[in-house]
Amino acid sequence: MALIVQKYGGTSVGSVSRIEAVADTIIKTRKQGHQVVVVVSAMSGETSRLIDLAHQIDSRPSARELDVLSTAGEQVAASLLAMAIIKRGYSAISLLADQIKITTDNHFGRARIEHIDSHRLEDEIEQGHIAIVAGFQGRDIENNITSLGRGGTDTTAVAVAVALKADECQIYTDVEGVYTTDPRIVPEARLMEVVTFDEMLELASLGAKVLHIRCVEYAGLHKIPLRVLSSFKPGKGTLITYEGSQMTTQAVSGIAANKDEAIITIVGAPNSPMLAADILSPVGEAGIEVDMIVQNIKHDDSVDFTFTVHRIDFEQAKAIAATIVTKIDAKTVQSNQNVAKISVVGVGMKSHSGVASTMFQALGREGINLQLIATSEIKISVVVEERYLELSVRALHSAFNLDTPV
Amino acid sequence: MALIVQKYGGTSVGSVSRIEAVADTIIKTRKQGHQVVVVVSAMSGETSRLIDLAHQIDSRPSARELDVLSTAGEQVAASLLAMAIIKRGYSAISLLADQIKITTDNHFGRARIEHIDSHRLEDEIEQGHIAIVAGFQGRDIENNITSLGRGGTDTTAVAVAVALKADECQIYTDVEGVYTTDPRIVPEARLMEVVTFDEMLELASLGAKVLHIRCVEYAGLHKIPLRVLSSFKPGKGTLITYEGSQMTTQAVSGIAANKDEAIITIVGAPNSPMLAADILSPVGEAGIEVDMIVQNIKHDDSVDFTFTVHRIDFEQAKAIAATIVTKIDAKTVQSNQNVAKISVVGVGMKSHSGVASTMFQALGREGINLQLIATSEIKISVVVEERYLELSVRALHSAFNLDTPV
Repeated sequence: MALIVQKYGGTSVGSVSRIEAVADTIIKTRKQGHQVVVVVSAMSGETSRLIDLAHQIDSRPSARELDVLSTAGEQVAASLLAMAIIKRGYSAISLLADQIKITTDNHFGRARIEHIDSHRLEDEIEQGHIAIVAGFQGRDIENNITSLGRGGTDTTAVAVAVALKADECQIYTDVEGVYTTDPRIVPEARLMEVVTFDEMLELASLGAKVLHIRCVEYAGLHKIPLRVLSSFKPGKGTLITYEGSQMTTQAVSGIAANKDEAIITIVGAPNSPMLAADILSPVGEAGIEVDMIVQNIKHDDSVDFTFTVHRIDFEQAKAIAATIVTKIDAKTVQSNQNVAKISVVGVGMKSHSGVASTMFQALGREGINLQLIATSEIKISVVVEERYLELSVRALHSAFNLDTPV
Repeated sequence: MALIVQKYGGTSVGSVSRIEAVADTIIKTRKQGHQVVVVVSAMSGETSRLIDLAHQIDSRPSARELDVLSTAGEQVAASLLAMAIIKRGYSAISLLADQIKITTDNHFGRARIEHIDSHRLEDEIEQGHIAIVAGFQGRDIENNITSLGRGGTDTTAVAVAVALKADECQIYTDVEGVYTTDPRIVPEARLMEVVTFDEMLELASLGAKVLHIRCVEYAGLHKIPLRVLSSFKPGKGTLITYEGSQMTTQAVSGIAANKDEAIITIVGAPNSPMLAADILSPVGEAGIEVDMIVQNIKHDDSVDFTFTVHRIDFEQAKAIAATIVTKIDAKTVQSNQNVAKISVVGVGMKSHSGVASTMFQALGREGINLQLIATSEIKISVVVEERYLELSVRALHSAFNLDTPV
């Protein structure tokens, strides 16, 4: 018998019939002999409906009151789900943040969980009740309602799993798990049975938006096994584990791609130890996040300094770069917002040499120019022209044998 | 400077524009120099929408979970109203049952308030904040969410007013106040400036459904002046007071009428000290409430025993009466569900003789037969054929000079 925390997102409980289906899934787990604690999001559309009401009143509504408002949806979903379970002859009880003392800091709209009192939940489990916790919400030290921001219900689920020392935290969503790459680009993309936390962090931040990165970090920190699976289709989903690395025989686990970047190069800057700071400080001060950074020293000792930003920040970053060029006496600015970032990710990379060369050869064979290369221990990213995105992903998926079932 | 508790019902906050209008009314009171605490219902239609979802899941949903569900609407309305006030440059804060410790018993769906901790509210008032309390909700001793049932937000408002020793509790609704009778029947019906708690209790229970009777009783018990007024039209509304009785010069304050009754007579029962018990016990055991009861002893010492029941209980009560006739050897049952009950109410009645004769003369002049008469200290009720309802009310309204402004 295991203790399992299950999280159901908005689309999973998006209608009465969906709620009934989720109740069936929960009871099925129970019948397998497990103890179940459930964390639930608002029915899909509900939180948007509420926030839209707020914006009709004030374009910048009070942050405290917005959290009181936006957390009502989870209360509704939790009680409806409890009813559906009770109707099926099992005892269930909905619990709100104050009832299980989900204590957060007081950053309304993006609060962080500081503590969960596990006593009440343990009592309910001991009495054989299925506890249904309203996700996304907390209380600060003054008992104000707080919300956890994007991906908040995932975070609640992991925090509940940590507090209860659960055996597994299952995130039910509208996808079947984590794929080796985007199945819309590569129809042969495989569902991964297992992926490591490190890999998942790289894949999540690169756009495989199955799980919010904060939730993955949190689970990894406390070594809670996470499983992503579909509430619409049966299946075992993908287990995200901190133990998987030694088992893997593959160098690369997945390929991520995103079009959210733009590239800016300051060409022909005089070499100086302060160059990076001179360029990146004004960009950072403007609130612009920089992703990849590469600096090349050319044979004439001048420097080409390249960085990528979110595409929404492109125009502003380009304008800042132009001022910098004048200030540091560089030659010019080159920029391109029609680029894509392609990354191969895998903990196996550490022990497999030749991943980079396999990657560059595969792209080279397709005639794809690499505008930028960046590497980390378990990831190699390249920036290419946006029109090559699909071709690049397909070529790499095949080059690393991800098309073939393991 | 007075401390005023204002309650706004569902239609008063039924849309964003209504919420904006209510915010203006609250700020207007504040600008008059008063401290304001607000109690708010869910936006009209919202509670029904939620309960409908529950009934799609289970025709008899868990009572505990139904309360978790149905109280979400007040949370939404309270936060939206707080936002609207904050947008207007005043500080406001929404507060839920657990935040001001509205403690109730554990009768889900119809809980009674046992205590409110006034400290938090007093703090907010002291800091100059307008507190917006979510009505209708409480917490039981185990911190479960409870709901107060019909008229619950009115009850919350009165309980908050009692806890704060407020100077007045204002119930904003969609009518302008309490009228001398139903204005749809008598266009000359006057808005009463003042009505006593005793009169209001009689008028409320007789169908002038402006306020829930429990709320009026509660306010009367703690001698909190209640005022009913419209959130749609400006005006002073009707003050319900425990002090008004000595000021009145009128015998009758208002005329109530309702069609919710049916009349049943057991004819020719043998006289016996146990007769009333023999008849009413089986009726009560069937869960049927009896309103008026009259017993006439005829010259042959047989008894006609008449009582009225809610019209929805009529068929069942008639069937029970038929069994009783056999059992106690009475002659027959007469019954009529096409009747109306007309009541004249007034604390002035105590000191004015002749109210009954004025009433009976007025009805007699119109040729209206009285099927039943019942009297209390401040009320005389008669049952007439339903088709005479409007005629009776108009005749009495005029006979007691209620058409004339005071």
